[in-house]
Amino acid sequence: MRWREIGETTCSVARTLSVIGDRWTLLILREAFLRTRRFDDFHAHLGLTRHVLTARLNTLVDEGVFEKVRYQDRPPRFEYRLTEKGLDLYPIVIGLTRWGDRWMAGEDGAPVELVHRECGHTMLPELGCPECGGPVNARNVEARPGPALRALLTNDDGARMRRAAPRDDKEKTR
Amino acid sequence: MRWREIGETTCSVARTLSVIGDRWTLLILREAFLRTRRFDDFHAHLGLTRHVLTARLNTLVDEGVFEKVRYQDRPPRFEYRLTEKGLDLYPIVIGLTRWGDRWMAGEDGAPVELVHRECGHTMLPELGCPECGGPVNARNVEARPGPALRALLTNDDGARMRRAAPRDDKEKTR
Repeated sequence: MRWREIGETTCSVARTLSVIGDRWTLLILREAFLRTRRFDDFHAHLGLTRHVLTARLNTLVDEGVFEKVRYQDRPPRFEYRLTEKGLDLYPIVIGLTRWGDRWMAGEDGAPVELVHRECGHTMLPELGCPECGGPVNARNVEARPGPALRALLTNDDGARMRRAAPRDDKEKTR
Repeated sequence: MRWREIGETTCSVARTLSVIGDRWTLLILREAFLRTRRFDDFHAHLGLTRHVLTARLNTLVDEGVFEKVRYQDRPPRFEYRLTEKGLDLYPIVIGLTRWGDRWMAGEDGAPVELVHRECGHTMLPELGCPECGGPVNARNVEARPGPALRALLTNDDGARMRRAAPRDDKEKTR
């Protein structure tokens, strides 16, 4: 399989990566969540080439992650604002931050601290279950085929299931 | 800045991406969380070349994300098991899943459903504050320089701060 086909697989991880899987894109998003909005600021903070930055920003506008808004008329100047779809990428950027803080920080500690405005505490967010409020981690979640995979299973005898669903050894544990 | 220098910046997002920022790596991790452990299974499920898969698995072993464990002696056979450091990548993979389910799924719905074993509900995990239990999102978190950036600020007058810290417009909101 070529990478450019990856967004067509029946897998939400692959579909997400087809939009934001580029490494510079994730750093552009980090900047956006730190309130950077203008081309020259992204360019100065990230140090990537203007060519690559232009390409990545255009893709994110096309995908509905950024809205390109004119903030000055003469000369025309634009800024890139996160849409609702873009703001909803926050848990991914936080996930990357949290893991880096925990496993890659070294003796100097975390580069950035996150403060929860609701309670004022410095914290590292954790995953929780919206149904019961309990913690969610790799050991207490089970992945099952959802509607899209069940439809595929019915349609073509599960041939494509093998690419994107829980394995046999997982099935046996049920 | 070249990509290979990215792990050296004072930013937890960049440090994490220096380990897992490759797109195939994130799909390898998705497979691992679906209980895939063996080279031939990763190869069959992902459809990438054996050469690329070998390189990515070796990197993940070197970084302490996978442990390579012999499961058969004659002939010798190995499997790749997530370490604690690897299991702690779960929130990132879940973040990618959740966003794909919400924004990229189309009419067929989600490919995979997640069931919280503690309560039995199908759910999409949300970020919460471990201090107060309230929801965490892009709008109710403030990023402040942490210990590592404060040390840099003291040492070199903030020159490197510009690359990885909240922007001026952010500072003004305090």
